[in-house]
Amino acid sequence: VRVGVGYDVHALEPGDAVWLGGVRIPHDHRLKGHSDADAALHALTDAILGAIGDGDIGRHFPPSDERWRGAASSLFLADAVRRVRERGGVVAHCDVAIVAEAPKIGPHREAMRAAIAAACGIPVDRVGVKATTNEGLGFTGRREGIAAIATATIRLPLPEDDAS
Amino acid sequence: VRVGVGYDVHALEPGDAVWLGGVRIPHDHRLKGHSDADAALHALTDAILGAIGDGDIGRHFPPSDERWRGAASSLFLADAVRRVRERGGVVAHCDVAIVAEAPKIGPHREAMRAAIAAACGIPVDRVGVKATTNEGLGFTGRREGIAAIATATIRLPLPEDDAS
Amino acid sequence: VRVGVGYDVHALEPGDAVWLGGVRIPHDHRLKGHSDADAALHALTDAILGAIGDGDIGRHFPPSDERWRGAASSLFLADAVRRVRERGGVVAHCDVAIVAEAPKIGPHREAMRAAIAAACGIPVDRVGVKATTNEGLGFTGRREGIAAIATATIRLPLPEDDAS
Ligand SMILES: [Mg+2]
Ligand SMILES: [Mg+2]
Ligand SMILES: [Mg+2]
Repeated sequence: VRVGVGYDVHALEPGDAVWLGGVRIPHDHRLKGHSDADAALHALTDAILGAIGDGDIGRHFPPSDERWRGAASSLFLADAVRRVRERGGVVAHCDVAIVAEAPKIGPHREAMRAAIAAACGIPVDRVGVKATTNEGLGFTGRREGIAAIATATIRLPLPEDDAS
Repeated sequence: VRVGVGYDVHALEPGDAVWLGGVRIPHDHRLKGHSDADAALHALTDAILGAIGDGDIGRHFPPSDERWRGAASSLFLADAVRRVRERGGVVAHCDVAIVAEAPKIGPHREAMRAAIAAACGIPVDRVGVKATTNEGLGFTGRREGIAAIATATIRLPLPEDDAS
Repeated sequence: VRVGVGYDVHALEPGDAVWLGGVRIPHDHRLKGHSDADAALHALTDAILGAIGDGDIGRHFPPSDERWRGAASSLFLADAVRRVRERGGVVAHCDVAIVAEAPKIGPHREAMRAAIAAACGIPVDRVGVKATTNEGLGFTGRREGIAAIATATIRLPLPEDDAS
């Protein structure tokens, strides 16, 4: 068992919806970025890549690459899971904490869990999504951006996992 | 084994003590919130809920509910552990990192570990508490609030945990 | 299996290099601190100490202690691993997410993984290093400092790990 941690932030700008946790949420701002700027999925993708020690999202999907302009971040997440499977491993659990003053995440939690489970190819009971505001403090509190922190629990085949 | 991550923040306002890690620490400010505003226990509660994919603290204990006004956050933590046990699981470990310029956390670390262990019903050697300042930077550095990041390591019964 | 989480920040000041992940990176600023101020290694050290519930880096290596002035933070990390081994445990995995607008971390990732693996006495495939900017937001976005969040996955001997 190995656990990775991921963190991501995207800035808010005027718009009509944010993508978060693989779900489009109507809102008076949108997240700015090269892809769909889904900070929750980006944090989770990095958590998985960290658990297998295979670079990070910026290395595998550089913003300079035109292929990923406006891309659905579920592609990035699925690619990280593919890398786990290539090593004979499985994703045992994914969890993400979203830090946002708005929009409200709760009503979209189950849709996010389902989207993450689908992208990872795991049962939905292996996905956690929580949200909190930053109580009006800092850049998230000033609604300048949305942040996310994620952990991924990975199981790799025993011979390698017993080697240390 | 599944690991969840939690994050929480509460603002500081003039007062005579903060509740952190289940311990009352005399201080010239207090944490503002509906309950006792214990950011460390809230982060830990969310970490446990994330590990079992069962909502978040805001869903189970909404600030709009008068029952939780001034509540001891150890109740929220114990409720999350109850949800783990309902699934036949155990909490293997809890860890929290507190980000605060003041008060000093070190002298209260062992009391916090004991309070968390008691709320979770686990031995104290299964609880970690660390603290750091934010080096005067950002909202925690300006003493506008206190933040906490937590992880919880959960074991669920094998049949479910082998299902992926 | 137990997982700990660590967080650290150091402020940037004019200088010629930063130490991050055990690697010296030429830069127009340096990280300010008593030791080499390597926020990534400090976060990782705290993650390991949290996983075994043994204090934090500030307790074991207080900034007030002249012995640690300018010290290489790999010493702190190695000491935390020593504490794991004293308990008959092993470090199964280390992962860190670095939050910095600059310098670029990617070109130094493999050197950091190697430095962390060496300090921990584990194979390099058990180490993850990721980096992200904060998209110009907050104190890291304003280049006032560099932050890091880490997780450490620890295995302790079975009798103790089954006790809960
Ligand atoms: Mg991103
Ligand atoms: Mg709270
Ligand atoms: Mg430090």
